[in-house]
Parts: sequence; C-alpha cells; structure tokens
Amino acid sequence: MRLGILGAGQLGRMIALAGYPLGVRCQLLDPAPDTSASQVASVISGRYDDPDMLDRLVTRLDAVTYEFENVDIAAVEHLDGRVPVRPGRRALEVAQDRLAEKSFFQDHDIETPAFAPADTLDELRSAVAHVGLPAVLKTRRLGYDGKGQVVLREEVDIERAWELGGGVPLILEAFVPFERELSVLAVRGVDGDMGCYPVVENHHVEGILTRSYAPASDLGPELEERARSYVRRLLTDLDYVGVLALELFQAEGRLLANEIAPRVHNSGHWTIEGAETSQFENHVRAVLGMPLGSTSMRGHAAMVNLIGALPTADQVLAHPHTHLHLYGKEPRPGRKVGHVTVRHDDPEVVRRTVERIRGLDGTL
Amino acid sequence: MRLGILGAGQLGRMIALAGYPLGVRCQLLDPAPDTSASQVASVISGRYDDPDMLDRLVTRLDAVTYEFENVDIAAVEHLDGRVPVRPGRRALEVAQDRLAEKSFFQDHDIETPAFAPADTLDELRSAVAHVGLPAVLKTRRLGYDGKGQVVLREEVDIERAWELGGGVPLILEAFVPFERELSVLAVRGVDGDMGCYPVVENHHVEGILTRSYAPASDLGPELEERARSYVRRLLTDLDYVGVLALELFQAEGRLLANEIAPRVHNSGHWTIEGAETSQFENHVRAVLGMPLGSTSMRGHAAMVNLIGALPTADQVLAHPHTHLHLYGKEPRPGRKVGHVTVRHDDPEVVRRTVERIRGLDGTL
Repeated sequence: MRLGILGAGQLGRMIALAGYPLGVRCQLLDPAPDTSASQVASVISGRYDDPDMLDRLVTRLDAVTYEFENVDIAAVEHLDGRVPVRPGRRALEVAQDRLAEKSFFQDHDIETPAFAPADTLDELRSAVAHVGLPAVLKTRRLGYDGKGQVVLREEVDIERAWELGGGVPLILEAFVPFERELSVLAVRGVDGDMGCYPVVENHHVEGILTRSYAPASDLGPELEERARSYVRRLLTDLDYVGVLALELFQAEGRLLANEIAPRVHNSGHWTIEGAETSQFENHVRAVLGMPLGSTSMRGHAAMVNLIGALPTADQVLAHPHTHLHLYGKEPRPGRKVGHVTVRHDDPEVVRRTVERIRGLDGTL
Repeated sequence: MRLGILGAGQLGRMIALAGYPLGVRCQLLDPAPDTSASQVASVISGRYDDPDMLDRLVTRLDAVTYEFENVDIAAVEHLDGRVPVRPGRRALEVAQDRLAEKSFFQDHDIETPAFAPADTLDELRSAVAHVGLPAVLKTRRLGYDGKGQVVLREEVDIERAWELGGGVPLILEAFVPFERELSVLAVRGVDGDMGCYPVVENHHVEGILTRSYAPASDLGPELEERARSYVRRLLTDLDYVGVLALELFQAEGRLLANEIAPRVHNSGHWTIEGAETSQFENHVRAVLGMPLGSTSMRGHAAMVNLIGALPTADQVLAHPHTHLHLYGKEPRPGRKVGHVTVRHDDPEVVRRTVERIRGLDGTL
C-alpha cells in the first residue's frame, strides 16, 4: 500500500521507516528542500497549499496523513474525497485553535485550566477578571514548544503583554501550579477499535520536551484510567483515525487537559522499543485501515531528546540499555536532532541510565 | 556513517533499515535490476566482479559488508585496504567450501557429522567406506536451501549419485538421524567484544527454513552453553567482525555443526522484536566499530517465513502478538517474500499463535 505524508521531518521519517516492514511505501511532501525523511523515503519538494503539488502527491495513494497539526484546512479539503485524509479535518480544526480545543475539552467533561478568549484589549481585561492571575496569554494558533506565550503575573502586565502579542487571536489560560506534565497517546482504527499507551511523564526545558518516562511513576490506577478515558472520549467524539496525543497537567489529584496533537508525538518515541507496537506502526496501521497492534508496554522505558547538538553514536551506545535514533538533521540551537530510548524491565535501571547519559551533548 | 553492502535482497534491506536510526546510510550493490532493498535504500545495479562497480561502491564508505557468503574473494581483495571489508575474507573462505568448513570445525574441537572429500568417483567410494551409509553427497561450493545435495542409502546409489553430481568438488557427509536442527547467532565487535543470542530451533520443508522458535525449548543449560562456546570459538579464531550464524544438528545429546553463515541469518529474524538489539542492528554496529547492543531476549519469540505466496497484511495482523515483515518481492514458488514474528512473554501463547497463522498463504 502507499501512504502520503504532509511533512518530511523526523516524524514523517519514522512513520516511513515503520511502514516498510508492513509493505507500505510512503510519499512525502515538504516545502523544505533537504528534509530528515528524504534520506529514507521519497519526498516531493513543494508547498502544502499548492493544488498541483497535492495532485502530484495523491497519485496512487491509499491514504494521506500528516506529521504536524497546522495543516492548511483548504489542502485537506482539496484532497478529501479523492483519498482518505486521516486523522481528519475535525481533529485538525480543534487542534489548530487553542480556544476551540479548550472549549472542546470543556464540552466533553475533560477538565482544563480556566480560560477565556482575549482577542481585544478589553476582552483580555475581562479574561483576567474571569481567569485570575497569574495566567498565560497564548496565541490561539501556530504556537508550539512554548513559543507565542507570555506569562501575566500582575495587573500591570496586561497592557505590556497586549503590546507584545496583540493583533492576532489570543487565549488567556490560568497559570496552573502543576506538579508534573503528563501525556497519554492512543490510537483508533477505521473500525473504531482503540488502543491506549500507558500515561507518560514529560520534562521540558524552556517549553521543549527533553525527557519522557513510561509509564509515569506513582500515578495510580484511578488517574491512569481517567487519562485513558479522556483520550478515548476524544478519539470517539472526533471520529478519529490514527494516533492522538493528549497533554495533561497533574495538579493535586486533578488532571487538566492542556492540548492535543492529532499525530504521532515526541512523548511517544519510547514506544519503538518500549511497546509491543510503536506509535508509528500503529499510526500507519490505523490510517491504512489495518488491524491495530498491541499498545502494551515491554518493561519500563524513557526517552531523552537530543537537542541542538549530537553526541557520537559510540558515546550513547557505550551505555547498556540505550537505543539511538538520529534524524539526519544538522544540529542548530533548539533543534531536535535525535533521541535516545532507554528500556529495561527494572525502572531503577532506566532512571540510572538516563542520569548517566544526561551529560552527553544534546541532552538538556 | 556510510556502509556498503554487497547484495540487495531482504537481508540487505533489513540491514539498511536497521542503519537509519543509527545515522548509518547504506549503499548497496546488486546485479539484479529490481531488488528488495532498492525500495528502502540506494542500490547500484552492477556485477560484484566488476572492478569499476566496486570502485563506485566504495566512494566515501566507512566499511563494506555482504548479505551472502558466496562473495567473490577477488572482489574482497579488490576492496580490502581501501575500506574495511567485514566480517572478512577468512570467514568467507571457510564458509564457501563445505570441506574447509567441516575441517575448520574439526580443527577447533567442534563436533561434526563424519565427512570426507569426494572429488573423484574413487574418492567417493573410499568416502562411503569411511563415512558409512546412509550419507549425503553435497557440492562443496554454492549449495543453499538444500540445493546441490543427494542422499545415498545403498552401495548401488554411488554411481548414480556420481553421475548426477560429479564433475565439481564434492563432500560426503554422514546422514545424521538428528532430533532437530538448531542455530546459534553471535556477534563480535572490532574490539573483540562478543554477544550471543539464545539458541533457536529451526524447522525446514524441502531444505527451506519455514519456522524458528526462540529460545529452543527444553535444550538445557549444558547444551545451550556448548552451542555458545562453539560460536564464540569460531568468532575468536576467525578474528570475526559482525554477526555469525552456526547451524547445528541435535542428536542424542550431541550437537553436530552443520554449517556457518558469515552474515545475518534467516533464523535470527525474530531478534527484531524478540531481542533487545536485533541481529541487523548489531551487525551494523559491529562492522562500523560501534559498541554492541544487548543480545538478551525479550520474552519468547517465533519466526514464520512467508514463502512463494503472501497473505494480506490484515490476515496476519488480525492475530494478536504478530509482527509483519514484507520484503517487497513478487511471490514466486520457493521464494522467501516475508516473515512474521510472534512475540509474547508466555511461550505457549507464542506456539498457539504460530499454529493459528500457519494456515495462511505463504506459510509452509
């Protein structure tokens, strides 16, 4: 079978690599001339909003998916009907707008931090009154890795923040003094079958994911099940096909939904070695209508991102229980250029190994 | 790093796929125009004995390896000195000639079936006297999957067998009434570090491997350790770098060495899901001088070859605990076109799952 992918970064690359054993060949499209995925699969260089490029892309494809959530809805409309585009338009519309996203959570009884729209300075003032301070002012669209966000601590911050960020649609969200950040990834097939990976604990530096631990330690069955029920609800109500990531804050026994990513997700990279079926393979299987694979864990795992710099392969692999994944990208500050998975049946061995490799170049 | 591979069949394909996450890009060479590996990596179409092709191949490579044991020694000589060729010439010379191979086993205290050279009809007659009947007359070179072999049961078979097979160098081997066929795969790094995968049990139909079970059931620690000591001895004495497979017959508490394959091996395909580090990744790591990965098992595994025909992906993946590997080859009678790995912590679940998928197209 043949799968089209919008975007040819490391996520597209790992989807393509997961496809090969299944007999799936991927055709990717990316505006960048030199991409991570182009080293391992066929990439057309072109714009996502160019109808001719999209027409070239869909030739003889069984389905189209994407590696990022800011896919132009017009492009999806252009493709839809000629070839299935999955996970699909509805999830994109929700994921592309933080206000739509938070409202969707609220409508589906998924707890969130308090929030309010702030498209004008007046709206921002009443949002502060509603949400309280401290709060985070975010662009509703196109934010990622902590970009497009500013924290408001006092009333006097309001006008300054507005000057920094105003002019595009904004959302104000309560600043949650959370204990930790979690995510839960799940997959849904064309037939409605679902699988859910264990909840993982995520660590960030300056808004960029640095490490994930799977499963999240000491979460307890009640919160684990609550997180899973949230993501199952989202999958069902979005009539979703593929892998979906839900990011959560844990705070005093509460789980507050932060955002969804309608795609494979950095906090699920550990699944390549740590789960029976990786998120990449399950995404391919789902969007092409194949039966899903088991989402069970194999022991314990952690993922350490390599950001902005690379250790040598030898430096990583000299540590037992490590698995190296390089993306074939030139290191630049803040750029994710690879990751290391640590897998072992004993969670203490996983933690100790993570601590040992944390001194290497690229680990933050 | 960049790795050259002679041969672009499914073994080359799976080596190339294992290389990508390590940042290793493979450049393959194969005389066939349309190969399994060409769908996933760069393949030059050309003859192995063409010096110009070899010169093209080695441009900017860090090492060269191969996916088959009948590599032209002259080609290795042509490459050697310009780029490391691994596992290396000595193992090839031993593996290419059944007489050299059996003699090598004997010289290193590795038990074998009785054998004798049979290059002339007279030599065949004295070989029968030495080895006894029944016996198997084999070509010394270029036999695989049971091809180039004929069984002698009575004295009258001698001349008929000679007429069928004579004219090329032959070896007569005692016909061993073995209980089962085993294999043991191991890997050795440039620094002499070694790792050994658990001994596996192999099933054949008409000389073609159909199934492997890992680990071999009820082998016992004494035979397991004997098999491992055999393969470690071979690795050391051949100053070997890479993955080596040793095929054995088990007969009344004895382990008789049948042959080696100086490469990744079909009976090690289960390692992709069933071991901490796959044979393909460990081969790449070894031949490029990287530290080796753990050869420990993860639970129990079995591998079922798909030969001559293919089930649909859905037919395979509908069975829990299965992992599908297609090679992108057109099915033809007797041709290996894919395999299925079954992995589970419970060996009984593995066996039951294998029995369930054995009815599918391509399983023998």
